[in-house]
Amino acid sequence: MLKKPILFTPGPTPIPPEVSLAEATPMIHHRTPEFSRIIYELKDDLKHLFQTQEGEVYTFSSSGTGAMEACVANLLTKKDKALVILGGKFAERWVELCEAYGVKTATVDVKYGEAVEPAAVEEALKKNKDIKVVFATQCETSTGVLHDIESIAKVVKKYSALLVVDAITGVGVHPLLMDAWGVDVAVTGSQKGCMIPPGLALLAVRPTAWEAIEKADLPRYYWDLRKMRDTLKKDTTPFTPAISLVRALKVAVDMIKKEGLENVWQRHAHMAHATREAVKALGLELYAQRPCNILTAVKAPKGLDVEAFLKRLKNEYGIWFAEGQEEMKGKIFRIAHVGYMNDFDILTAVSAVERGLYEAGYPVEIGKGVATAQKCLLKGEIPKEAKKKPVPAPL
Amino acid sequence: MLKKPILFTPGPTPIPPEVSLAEATPMIHHRTPEFSRIIYELKDDLKHLFQTQEGEVYTFSSSGTGAMEACVANLLTKKDKALVILGGKFAERWVELCEAYGVKTATVDVKYGEAVEPAAVEEALKKNKDIKVVFATQCETSTGVLHDIESIAKVVKKYSALLVVDAITGVGVHPLLMDAWGVDVAVTGSQKGCMIPPGLALLAVRPTAWEAIEKADLPRYYWDLRKMRDTLKKDTTPFTPAISLVRALKVAVDMIKKEGLENVWQRHAHMAHATREAVKALGLELYAQRPCNILTAVKAPKGLDVEAFLKRLKNEYGIWFAEGQEEMKGKIFRIAHVGYMNDFDILTAVSAVERGLYEAGYPVEIGKGVATAQKCLLKGEIPKEAKKKPVPAPL
Repeated sequence: MLKKPILFTPGPTPIPPEVSLAEATPMIHHRTPEFSRIIYELKDDLKHLFQTQEGEVYTFSSSGTGAMEACVANLLTKKDKALVILGGKFAERWVELCEAYGVKTATVDVKYGEAVEPAAVEEALKKNKDIKVVFATQCETSTGVLHDIESIAKVVKKYSALLVVDAITGVGVHPLLMDAWGVDVAVTGSQKGCMIPPGLALLAVRPTAWEAIEKADLPRYYWDLRKMRDTLKKDTTPFTPAISLVRALKVAVDMIKKEGLENVWQRHAHMAHATREAVKALGLELYAQRPCNILTAVKAPKGLDVEAFLKRLKNEYGIWFAEGQEEMKGKIFRIAHVGYMNDFDILTAVSAVERGLYEAGYPVEIGKGVATAQKCLLKGEIPKEAKKKPVPAPL
Repeated sequence: MLKKPILFTPGPTPIPPEVSLAEATPMIHHRTPEFSRIIYELKDDLKHLFQTQEGEVYTFSSSGTGAMEACVANLLTKKDKALVILGGKFAERWVELCEAYGVKTATVDVKYGEAVEPAAVEEALKKNKDIKVVFATQCETSTGVLHDIESIAKVVKKYSALLVVDAITGVGVHPLLMDAWGVDVAVTGSQKGCMIPPGLALLAVRPTAWEAIEKADLPRYYWDLRKMRDTLKKDTTPFTPAISLVRALKVAVDMIKKEGLENVWQRHAHMAHATREAVKALGLELYAQRPCNILTAVKAPKGLDVEAFLKRLKNEYGIWFAEGQEEMKGKIFRIAHVGYMNDFDILTAVSAVERGLYEAGYPVEIGKGVATAQKCLLKGEIPKEAKKKPVPAPL
């Protein structure tokens, strides 16, 4: 087959041509009114993405992990203790980051593939009275699970801890209402719902977090949010920004605004639902108990060589799915449906799964997956729980 | 739905990103060794496309119609008579061109949607002993019919006429073996099987046509093939060429060579077959009796407002099909599957047809079209008549 590569991976994700063109326009210098204008215009756009009027959003030239590190470095002192809600490889990163800075952690253990029970968070906070920060993950990309941040926030608010959310694959996909829910700090990366290449990380801070930021005593320089705050006020950045990516981000958020953030959320719910139904129709099982809309993690059927299956789809058909990470390697594969994607992409993904399974000798009823996806897509079906439409704040 | 426009139109067709990037590289001047090198390298590539070792291929900065005009202006004298094989809007253009130059024509009349019987061509040639040139069309894009050029050539060879083929949508899609079949002149445009934007026309001339070219007395300047011949020998062009398009063409033909011309032909046969089967599974009828692999012309079901149907697909979903031209307007729609297209694109096209019909209130079994297409695509089905694999000449 003629290969036209499509990334069904949970970041990087397909780039809209408008965004690629913006990236390719002639370079400008960043210490100029022209670039400051972009920084200025992006402020409200990014606050809208995180659904915060009270907060500010800071843009780091880094991967999403960089912004996670900034959370740790800016919110804690050497004597503080953090609570990490586990459940996957990305949640575990919060523990690793705390350990790197010598910060003690308690954890809420969650089985891979499951979402945390808010009651378990409450129990942990009751047991550990000295928790300064709760680190949570909205979408656990390694397992495809969506944690209920709204409910977690309700619990955390009862205690004197701050809630920090890794929403790296959540922003622009799932509702994350920072002000309404009381999320103090949240982060995302540029190569997910934001539809641009990797290289930028966004960190949103509500005023509730500033006392801790001022008091923090961990080493910080590049990640120092005080520098970010002071320079953003002047519509600039402390260090050289990734100019082309910032310009690309402006184009991408303009696209999101044009589509409407609520519609973007609904679109992801709709695509995820169709993917899940199609995969189930093929006799496969979902890995996540409470699946997110970023990706569908699928349990590998018995006897399927997942690595060979994915390699074949990539090499023969240009279809990139993600495999399982570490312990999950060989046991699951992950179909991402995030960012610049529509119904026809879902059909392509499902068609590729059918094709790959068929060619691997797995007994599959050819056409059943695509027909099921088509039915869900065409009837505009979305899962019940996604119908509750949170209203985004006005821009 | 998030719109990601896809052109299922019979030119322009989707552009490979590699081609777009080549087009966007910094401009170079054309009276330079750098540009001459491209012209030089393209010579063999283009001869391969037309399957001629004996001939040469000339590149005009024009639409395909320009190259058709060049055929008329270069091959005939005021006293000559031409025979035109009709059957659609593009075949009729040969008559219009002859009339514009004051050249008398006889015609072989063919009903829209049908292919010419080679016997009818023979009959016309017997009746009109003074035919100098026979103008034929390989793929009649307006009706989706494939004419049997090989058989037509066999007939024409028995008479002293030249055979000129409009292969504008044929080259790079259907076998056209100029040397083996004895086609004297053939033309194509750049925005079809060549996968680049419109703006170039290719005109292939076998040595058999040069006597007529030398004797022709119709007015010609831009289209003068003698100028083209003399400059091509020096790896240059008589007038300023469309530099970025020529560079894009080099990249595109390299892609075709890499895939293999036979594989390109087979891919189109495979995609066309799946589209036809899917459309029939939805209860629709094909318009062409002998369908080409460029596009599938579909009879509009009773009561369907074709214009509204196509407009909705375009505006809501970014899917561009073509409507019928003139007399066929409102009666058919055309799904092109030509150029930079693969199996997943066919699923998208079929899904869009299902969707559009369903939303127009036409009784359609949702999922039947995509499932049928998937079955054909996955099993690598190609129609019987396409299995006869003509071997392309070596490069």
